[in-house]
Amino acid sequence: MTTTDFQRARSPEAKQQREDAILEAARVLGAQHGIRRVTLTDIAEAVGMHKSALLRYFETREQIFLRLTAAGWRDWSLAVRAELAALSETSPAGVARALAATLAARPMFCDLLAQAPLNLERNVSLEAVRAFKLVTLDEVGAIGAALRSALPRLTERDAVDIIAAATSLSGALWQMATPGPAVEALYRSDPRLAHAVVDVEPRVTRMLTGMIAGFLA
Amino acid sequence: MTTTDFQRARSPEAKQQREDAILEAARVLGAQHGIRRVTLTDIAEAVGMHKSALLRYFETREQIFLRLTAAGWRDWSLAVRAELAALSETSPAGVARALAATLAARPMFCDLLAQAPLNLERNVSLEAVRAFKLVTLDEVGAIGAALRSALPRLTERDAVDIIAAATSLSGALWQMATPGPAVEALYRSDPRLAHAVVDVEPRVTRMLTGMIAGFLA
Repeated sequence: MTTTDFQRARSPEAKQQREDAILEAARVLGAQHGIRRVTLTDIAEAVGMHKSALLRYFETREQIFLRLTAAGWRDWSLAVRAELAALSETSPAGVARALAATLAARPMFCDLLAQAPLNLERNVSLEAVRAFKLVTLDEVGAIGAALRSALPRLTERDAVDIIAAATSLSGALWQMATPGPAVEALYRSDPRLAHAVVDVEPRVTRMLTGMIAGFLA
Repeated sequence: MTTTDFQRARSPEAKQQREDAILEAARVLGAQHGIRRVTLTDIAEAVGMHKSALLRYFETREQIFLRLTAAGWRDWSLAVRAELAALSETSPAGVARALAATLAARPMFCDLLAQAPLNLERNVSLEAVRAFKLVTLDEVGAIGAALRSALPRLTERDAVDIIAAATSLSGALWQMATPGPAVEALYRSDPRLAHAVVDVEPRVTRMLTGMIAGFLA
């Protein structure tokens, strides 16, 4: 790192720019290769920084991806609330489709949703986890209000459970749906395993339609 | 490894005994520490074997845990089918409780269910994945038949979706419910984060009750 770079990065604005560049590099790499394969060294290389310099901005690789997960919640929250507000048919199936479609359209967010509790929340400071959790709680509150506005008979607890199910199922099924090319080829070649091939969006739509209809029944 | 050991292990029976001992050691370590923290070296040490000797029996640490996941499916399948057969009240809530309670009573299986598609299925041979998938498909078939015998109006597709939701949700929520002592302490100390504390069994019961009722509606 040159002296000029170092001085630039000392202003809050420059620090923010650096953080943004690091997050963007991690986002691009994660979308290309899947979160599990992206190392801190990969991110540092992509952003043209030494790994030691990068560690001045983020604690760990997990903190970077946890920040992207929080950004993913904000982005998905905006999208799903817009979909819910625009629904012409506020049936269980219409609401389920809005949830599943907006999640399936965000494959890296689905990957992050499954990775967060398993891996990302376990290698960061308590403050980083606290910040992350507060973002998700805010967004769950906002999406919950939109769900109850679309289907007023849902309770607050119903809404929280629907969001937890939508995100947990999309996270888990996305992992099953993207098993790597070799295993995917195995699934498609062995007729006994045809059932193991998962199509996330229709599957999650069907499960959530059932759950929402059941909560309203 | 002594010559005697080597000769013993050449008979199919001795080979089976070794495999069983390795699987049992991995099961005990996984239950104690969580799957993510158990290495191949830990397992080799626990079973009193050199790591290189252990690798004659299993390809990778992931294959060992994938074998335990298959064993977990067989064990859970027996337990949940017995519960379903013994139900006095075959309501959506009764069936949901049987599924959620038998899963929550098997914390290491919940851990494995979340780890399998993310980590375990990705570092083993195609044959190991094929063997694993065939076991799960068999058990899904058996549990599905038991579900439809308890609630005859469920379709085969409903039953498969209920089992997928039960296992995916229990796997995901179990990870959230066991975030390690430090983060758990943070949750309990910060009232804003009280909602983030997950109690797997009642939560999964509630979600599945909704889903099953919706499928029957």
